[in-house]
Amino acid sequence: MVDKIKVSLLGSTGMVGQKMVKLLSKHPYLELVKVSASPSKIGKKYKDSVKWIEPGDIPENVKDLPIVSTNYEDHKDVDIVLSALPNELAESIELELVKNGKIVVSNASPFRMDPDVPLINPEVNWEHLELLKVQQKKKGWKGLLVKNPNCTAAIMSMPIKPLLDIAEKSKILITTLQAVSGAGYNGISFMAIEGNIIPYIKGEEDKIAKELTKLNGKFEGQQIIPARLDTSVTSIRVPTRVGHMGVINIITNEKVNIEEIKQRFRNFKSLPQIKNLSTAPKSPIIVRDEEDRPQPMLDVSAENGMAITVGRIRHENNVLRLIVLGDNLVRGAAGITILTVEVMKELGYI
Amino acid sequence: MVDKIKVSLLGSTGMVGQKMVKLLSKHPYLELVKVSASPSKIGKKYKDSVKWIEPGDIPENVKDLPIVSTNYEDHKDVDIVLSALPNELAESIELELVKNGKIVVSNASPFRMDPDVPLINPEVNWEHLELLKVQQKKKGWKGLLVKNPNCTAAIMSMPIKPLLDIAEKSKILITTLQAVSGAGYNGISFMAIEGNIIPYIKGEEDKIAKELTKLNGKFEGQQIIPARLDTSVTSIRVPTRVGHMGVINIITNEKVNIEEIKQRFRNFKSLPQIKNLSTAPKSPIIVRDEEDRPQPMLDVSAENGMAITVGRIRHENNVLRLIVLGDNLVRGAAGITILTVEVMKELGYI
Amino acid sequence: MVDKIKVSLLGSTGMVGQKMVKLLSKHPYLELVKVSASPSKIGKKYKDSVKWIEPGDIPENVKDLPIVSTNYEDHKDVDIVLSALPNELAESIELELVKNGKIVVSNASPFRMDPDVPLINPEVNWEHLELLKVQQKKKGWKGLLVKNPNCTAAIMSMPIKPLLDIAEKSKILITTLQAVSGAGYNGISFMAIEGNIIPYIKGEEDKIAKELTKLNGKFEGQQIIPARLDTSVTSIRVPTRVGHMGVINIITNEKVNIEEIKQRFRNFKSLPQIKNLSTAPKSPIIVRDEEDRPQPMLDVSAENGMAITVGRIRHENNVLRLIVLGDNLVRGAAGITILTVEVMKELGYI
Amino acid sequence: MVDKIKVSLLGSTGMVGQKMVKLLSKHPYLELVKVSASPSKIGKKYKDSVKWIEPGDIPENVKDLPIVSTNYEDHKDVDIVLSALPNELAESIELELVKNGKIVVSNASPFRMDPDVPLINPEVNWEHLELLKVQQKKKGWKGLLVKNPNCTAAIMSMPIKPLLDIAEKSKILITTLQAVSGAGYNGISFMAIEGNIIPYIKGEEDKIAKELTKLNGKFEGQQIIPARLDTSVTSIRVPTRVGHMGVINIITNEKVNIEEIKQRFRNFKSLPQIKNLSTAPKSPIIVRDEEDRPQPMLDVSAENGMAITVGRIRHENNVLRLIVLGDNLVRGAAGITILTVEVMKELGYI
Repeated sequence: MVDKIKVSLLGSTGMVGQKMVKLLSKHPYLELVKVSASPSKIGKKYKDSVKWIEPGDIPENVKDLPIVSTNYEDHKDVDIVLSALPNELAESIELELVKNGKIVVSNASPFRMDPDVPLINPEVNWEHLELLKVQQKKKGWKGLLVKNPNCTAAIMSMPIKPLLDIAEKSKILITTLQAVSGAGYNGISFMAIEGNIIPYIKGEEDKIAKELTKLNGKFEGQQIIPARLDTSVTSIRVPTRVGHMGVINIITNEKVNIEEIKQRFRNFKSLPQIKNLSTAPKSPIIVRDEEDRPQPMLDVSAENGMAITVGRIRHENNVLRLIVLGDNLVRGAAGITILTVEVMKELGYI
Repeated sequence: MVDKIKVSLLGSTGMVGQKMVKLLSKHPYLELVKVSASPSKIGKKYKDSVKWIEPGDIPENVKDLPIVSTNYEDHKDVDIVLSALPNELAESIELELVKNGKIVVSNASPFRMDPDVPLINPEVNWEHLELLKVQQKKKGWKGLLVKNPNCTAAIMSMPIKPLLDIAEKSKILITTLQAVSGAGYNGISFMAIEGNIIPYIKGEEDKIAKELTKLNGKFEGQQIIPARLDTSVTSIRVPTRVGHMGVINIITNEKVNIEEIKQRFRNFKSLPQIKNLSTAPKSPIIVRDEEDRPQPMLDVSAENGMAITVGRIRHENNVLRLIVLGDNLVRGAAGITILTVEVMKELGYI
Repeated sequence: MVDKIKVSLLGSTGMVGQKMVKLLSKHPYLELVKVSASPSKIGKKYKDSVKWIEPGDIPENVKDLPIVSTNYEDHKDVDIVLSALPNELAESIELELVKNGKIVVSNASPFRMDPDVPLINPEVNWEHLELLKVQQKKKGWKGLLVKNPNCTAAIMSMPIKPLLDIAEKSKILITTLQAVSGAGYNGISFMAIEGNIIPYIKGEEDKIAKELTKLNGKFEGQQIIPARLDTSVTSIRVPTRVGHMGVINIITNEKVNIEEIKQRFRNFKSLPQIKNLSTAPKSPIIVRDEEDRPQPMLDVSAENGMAITVGRIRHENNVLRLIVLGDNLVRGAAGITILTVEVMKELGYI
Repeated sequence: MVDKIKVSLLGSTGMVGQKMVKLLSKHPYLELVKVSASPSKIGKKYKDSVKWIEPGDIPENVKDLPIVSTNYEDHKDVDIVLSALPNELAESIELELVKNGKIVVSNASPFRMDPDVPLINPEVNWEHLELLKVQQKKKGWKGLLVKNPNCTAAIMSMPIKPLLDIAEKSKILITTLQAVSGAGYNGISFMAIEGNIIPYIKGEEDKIAKELTKLNGKFEGQQIIPARLDTSVTSIRVPTRVGHMGVINIITNEKVNIEEIKQRFRNFKSLPQIKNLSTAPKSPIIVRDEEDRPQPMLDVSAENGMAITVGRIRHENNVLRLIVLGDNLVRGAAGITILTVEVMKELGYI
């Protein structure tokens, strides 16, 4: 790969930002050249403005980069802007960059449910990127805005995709057990969650249910037709570090062959696999036959955190049940964004 | 209370056994006079054969008691035998005692689903004790055998009782998040569960579903008619110490008034409350209106661990949802046994 | 006790504040009548301005109290003001109250090392309260200011007191393993400390070493002569909730009789024990002979958190070693303050 | 490397055994060809007799290996036997193999303090391998026995080596904070250690103090002359997963220049670095200048777990203090054994 694609990163010092810095430092053709962070850090070196919490040292090529602002001027010479901004700051910052012509691929929540903005989980709905043509026409933006889903929706949408024929005819009940990192590095205090369970995550349940319909929807020329998924989600915070688990119950009185379901998962491949993209997992969905898997401690890093793991697949009593686990920081955030960029390059958007 | 009831305790050195020792030490009329434990400990003082893990010291009246065997001879002069035996040892030991005329109230699993053995969670089904008359006739035992349910079934059966009219017409899906103490003090290693989730507990899911039908069943003269509960349970081990949580989903297309449901819970009283029994919680079901409750760290000790706490009661999308929490060692084990004895005394069985 | 003493509490909604609210709610003669908190909460009811984290509900007599300011006007009709203010806010607020004539007993750090301010750990140095006479003369304050020590210094000063003759001739090395609650409820995030150790606590090591010399010093008419303690402290944060542990090494080539040392600890009584004060532990220093004690999970609540526990007392190789544990929220903060007030009442300062 | 060295592994299914399996699977010239485990597993495939707890799957070349016994017959065609046996089983098994002519490199404790058996931490005392000549003469064994130290001694001996001139003239006090994995995967239950501290590890303190004198001793032709280290150790179990920390206090009234001490550590290289051995860390001792390091979560994996990290180096009050951290499973066990084999090959013992 001769020509590298120049990348800038918004929100580079947060936990997801650091994960992106790390993943980009080993990337074959994405080159991180600009890092931005909160105004008080502008001008400082990256290494002096970050509390680095990834194992190992800050990548060499990044540690001395100066922090820049989020203004267009500071990003005009990069090919693409990645965003790990906090949700509450993202809307206006990203909009300014897109209006000025930047391609922004973002993890933050604003615009995710905007009908003209593709919400991409590459293996699930890479073809929704075609919506970008509609976006340019309708929004009148000079640049492009692509969103990645909520971390839990990213993970849960994966096993639903190959089951969509069943799922669309069923009632779906999901209980999610979400790791503390999902709330940010300083999001929850030790005293609040150690040895405890908090059965509530603000705004999460609705986001997951809605984003699942868009992610599993169909692009039909001008718009995404959402999947008809009737999903009730209960989201619970548990004292684990990384890895969101979902207990998925699909109530169906259809006949279900468990072995055939496992085959659907094991055979699931999509564009990232077919094109052998750099960050793509070989098996996006790993099926575990052991009765006590998946477990965060053993399975969260499967395929460098880019695969999800499914286990305890059962059908009894008219309920198809499975347990899903994925890395909320990689599959659910930093990795999905980078894989999205790889798909965009493959398809000629970059 | 002039005359104390003499009690012996099987399995007195385990975690539930210790909890019983502690609860009995403050009891107004139950007096612990015999403690039994595994054969290697017989003859030693209680304090020298237990690794005491309850906060505070071993109760004065117990610490010098000699460990006795589980044989009938060693228990013939007590009024009642409580059992916190491991499931795999309980069957033959308890049977020998009952055949020899003892009243045994037991936490262990054998005989729980025997149609002639009452499975008692006092507030839920104290009236099932009447089955003891049938038991004596049919089994030909000189004594009496009363069982307490699985710890999770004990907790989950409480909120289902006041909802039984709805529940019997619905599909019920329960995800349980169970504390490590449920597996015994040495049941799960730190390395296996710290910061981890194990989405499987051997035998638990079936036990819970079945016991719920018996607990919420009706005694009709000669037998218990099980409740028609169509329950699918997924049991998950989480890294908390004490407190089993249940995410209960009741799929119903009936109209449901949330305030009325809360009233049912708040108004729920039963014989233990009416007779003001020593160990009875004033409010067996506590309803929390805060959006992030119940939490083990804050709610598990409500009413000294004898009340369960219910929160996040919602009805959306044809699913009545609630989150339940109870103390698996007290409400689910040691406390329920003692309260059962109190009911038996109240009703004249002792 | 006919006449209750009216108490107000600064910093009432924090973790130590809540612990004081709880302890005061059961107190025989201290009556909490005013609660203050940060300006944004003024006027709200206590129950609406606190995120209550003590097990059980907010005490009845406090939950509807309106939050008042920290100004003198809001406290002029109470007999004594207790302070659980954050260190960085305490200085000016407490000073204003004292200058206006209030008696303030405070947990916060400012003024602790002021030569005219008694730093009180009741069993260790209650007689330092006599310094208040000097304080009034020298400072010209209309009220009185009494300080309680840093939570770790409070705990470590206890076992040093009966060993002072040896300690003053020795080099002392202490490694402290401090619970997360010591940093406040939201002080350390789960991601930072779960399964981790942070071998640094800002400012702590110096505070402990210095406060130990004052606490174990002698009042000589006009001033406290500090104890000649040559102490090096290394303070480490560990993932426990409550309970600061100290590994104390006293390097001495004197002959030491371990049994005699244990007797010194077991016999240690002081004014609070002699006068049988309400909050005083019967045995301020509990000696454990088991080889694996003290442990936070088993020993932190000894005597309702007011006793410290000492174990592994050894003398080998010219090092007298012991391991100490105390409840940082009770013995180290809320309880010590209340016991100080009880001593002041006993001695006629209130 | 044309010819691979054939290796067999005793205790292959334990936690350290699994770590060795993993490290060997990527090794350039050590080839694991035999795996042994407890008698009940003999004949089964490795994958069917192990509860695999390393992230990722069992290495391809090992998963179908049949479990063999520990008898000489089952190991006679390998070049070297590695042992991760439990201490209580190791003595007779290893002795039989050595007497029959095998080269055994072992992690287990028996023979560690035998004057004729080299106790090797490669960077610290690789030259002690010369003792093997004495061993063969004196013991009359046909094979060779080499021991690796206790995991904590392995880690603590590293920073003491470059400070030996100071350390031998000083009193040394070490408090170790040891991770739960040090007790084996099932060694400590969650209920016993979660949120808790156990200030006692059976046998550990003596082992560490003694092994330090041998590791830092000098080989003088016929024997190891132990270093004159006067060390008192207090060993404490803390709720971390991997990584033993040591708070080292060296009481010295010599002048100490902190920068010079840091240089000693940073410059520390030994045979493994000079010969660039496969498993050798580039920097065996990493010095961290941040005030809050080392931390297990951030530093334990430095150089794949083969480097130790030193921080908070201070000299005040005649105490030279430092905090040390190392990976107890890699530097302290599996990795040190493999590096020892590499040194033995380099020196021609294999």
